[in-house]
Amino acid sequence: MSSQPSGLDLGVIRAAGVRIADKITRTPVMRSSTFDEGCGQRLYFKCENLQKTGAFKARGATNAVFSLSEDEARRGVVTHSSGNHAAALARAARLRGIPAHIVMPDNAPRAKQSAVRRYGGEVLLCEPTLAAREAAARQKQLETGAVLVHPYDDLRVIAGQGTTALEFLEQVPALDAIVCPVGGGGHLAGIAVAAKALNPRIRVIGAEPAGADDAARSLKSGRIEASVSPKSIADGLLASLGKLGFAEIQLHVDDIITVSDPEIIAAMRSIWEVMKIIVEPSGAVGFAAALKLAPLRWGLTIGVVLTGGNLDLDHLPWQKEREGSS
Amino acid sequence: MSSQPSGLDLGVIRAAGVRIADKITRTPVMRSSTFDEGCGQRLYFKCENLQKTGAFKARGATNAVFSLSEDEARRGVVTHSSGNHAAALARAARLRGIPAHIVMPDNAPRAKQSAVRRYGGEVLLCEPTLAAREAAARQKQLETGAVLVHPYDDLRVIAGQGTTALEFLEQVPALDAIVCPVGGGGHLAGIAVAAKALNPRIRVIGAEPAGADDAARSLKSGRIEASVSPKSIADGLLASLGKLGFAEIQLHVDDIITVSDPEIIAAMRSIWEVMKIIVEPSGAVGFAAALKLAPLRWGLTIGVVLTGGNLDLDHLPWQKEREGSS
Repeated sequence: MSSQPSGLDLGVIRAAGVRIADKITRTPVMRSSTFDEGCGQRLYFKCENLQKTGAFKARGATNAVFSLSEDEARRGVVTHSSGNHAAALARAARLRGIPAHIVMPDNAPRAKQSAVRRYGGEVLLCEPTLAAREAAARQKQLETGAVLVHPYDDLRVIAGQGTTALEFLEQVPALDAIVCPVGGGGHLAGIAVAAKALNPRIRVIGAEPAGADDAARSLKSGRIEASVSPKSIADGLLASLGKLGFAEIQLHVDDIITVSDPEIIAAMRSIWEVMKIIVEPSGAVGFAAALKLAPLRWGLTIGVVLTGGNLDLDHLPWQKEREGSS
Repeated sequence: MSSQPSGLDLGVIRAAGVRIADKITRTPVMRSSTFDEGCGQRLYFKCENLQKTGAFKARGATNAVFSLSEDEARRGVVTHSSGNHAAALARAARLRGIPAHIVMPDNAPRAKQSAVRRYGGEVLLCEPTLAAREAAARQKQLETGAVLVHPYDDLRVIAGQGTTALEFLEQVPALDAIVCPVGGGGHLAGIAVAAKALNPRIRVIGAEPAGADDAARSLKSGRIEASVSPKSIADGLLASLGKLGFAEIQLHVDDIITVSDPEIIAAMRSIWEVMKIIVEPSGAVGFAAALKLAPLRWGLTIGVVLTGGNLDLDHLPWQKEREGSS
C-alpha cells in the first residue's frame, strides 16, 4: 500500500494537520503598525521562519515521513536537496527513528550540511547538477529501498505544506488574500487548496522572483514553462515548478506577482528592522509582492507567509549589494 | 500633585500594568530545544525585542507619561537619551497627544534620531557629554515646564519596566530564576520587586558586561560604585547605576553575573541563528549570563529577558570583530 494520497483536498490536508500537530510549531502570526500605516493595508505575517528547522519545509517532510507504512518506514527515506527540505526531512526521520539519506551538491554550504548531520541524517555529496543529484538519490533508493520524498513534487509533502493555511485561517479568519512565495510550487499549491476550500472568496497570490519567473509564465500560458538558468538572491525559489503543484495552482491561484532582487532585499531588511525577526531572502518574497498589491485596493486584510529564516549571517544581501556596487 | 509614586511595591507595578496594557505589546515567550539540549536547563525567553519601539523601554516611558496629571501632561515631557528610551518616550507622548523634547548627543546614530522624529518627538542635539545632556534637558524644562522623565532613575519608569515580570510569571509561573541585563538598573529593579513579591523563592539575577560592571561591584560593596569609562559592545548598558534602582537591587537581587564582549556576541549570534529573532548586543547579555548558570545546577527553569532589538544592520558585531582581528 502506498503512503501517497490519491489526490489533494481539504480532508487530506486536515489529516496532515492532525498527523504533524505535535511534531511541528504552531507558528505565531505577527503584525506591524509601521507596515500597516506604510502600505494602507492590514498585514498579517505567518511566521514560518520560526518553524522547526527554520522553514515551512518541516510541515511537508514530517507529514511525508509519518504517512509511511511500517514497511516503508523501516527502509528509510531519501531525497536530494541543498536547502531547507534537507534538514526538515532529516529531523522528521529522526523523530520517527528511521534513516534519512540526503543527497547534496558538494558546493552546498557547510552550515546546511551540518544541520542535516545534527539531525542524524546521512549526507551524500555529489556533483552540483540536477542530473547528478537525481542519479545519486536513485542509486541510494536501489541500494536501500528507501522511499524518495521529493522536496515538492509529492502529494504527501504538498498536503503537509497546506497546513500553513489551516492554521493561518484559524488565527485570522477574515483574510481577504494570502500571499506566498513560489519556487517548486508545493507550498503555494497546498495553501491554495486549503484556503479556497475554507473560503472560496479568498484570493491566493503567488510571489516569485523576476529572475526565476517560471511559475508566473506557466500560469499565464497554461502549461509548465521551462525555467532557464534562473537567477535571484532568493535561492530557495530557483527550483522548477513541479507537475503536481502546478495542477493545483492552475485551479486555485488567482495571480502570481514577480518582484525584483532589490525589492526582495528591501523587503527582507524592513522585516528585520521593523519586526525584529530573521527572514531569508526567499522568505521575504511574499512581503515584497504584498507591497505591490497596495495600488489595487486599500484596506485589505492580507496574509503574508514568511517562509523561512535560514541564511549565512556573515554574508547579508545588502552587504553583497554594497560590495557589488562599490 | 506629583505623578511619582511614594515607593515601589507589587501594587504600584500592577497599577502600571493596568495603565499601559492597551498601549504596549504583551510580548511572546519563546523556547528553543536546541538551546535547552545544549545547556541542560529549560530556558524561556521573554521577547522584549518584539516590544513596541523594539525594546522594553516602552513599558516605563508609557507608564510615566500616562501617570502624569492633566496639568503636568499639558506641559509635555523631556528627557536625555541616545538610546531606546528616546523613541519610547516620544511614542508614549504621541499616544497621549503631548509634546516630547528629546535631548540627544550630536553623535547619536541617524536611525535613532529618525525614530524619535517619526514618533513626533522634537530632537535637541547637544555635545556628547553627560553634563551637556543634563544641561540641555534642564534648560528645556525651564523654558517649557515639561516634566523630566529620566531613563531609569524614576519610580514611574521603574514600575513600568517591572511589568515585564508580571507578564513573564503569568506566562511561565514555574520559573526558578529570571536573568535580566542591568545598565542603569531600572528594569532589573522593577523585575526584582515584582518577581520576589509574586514568588519569594525565585532567584533574580542581573547580567552585566564585564567592561561596564559597576552594578556587580556596587552589589558587592553595598554602595554605588563609580562607573569609570565603561566599554562594551552592549552600548545600551553603559549607563551608571541609578540610586532608586540600586536600593531595590540591594534588597531583591540575588547575584549579578558579568560576561565578556565575545560571550555577548556569541550569545547574540546564537539567538539570531537558532531562534530567528533580532536582538541587539545589550539584549543578549541575559542569555550570555544564563549560559554561565549551567554549572551551578542542572534542570532549572530559567527566564531570560531579551531586552531589545535595535541596532545598525550595516555593522554587525561579528563583522566588526572579524575586521578588528584581521
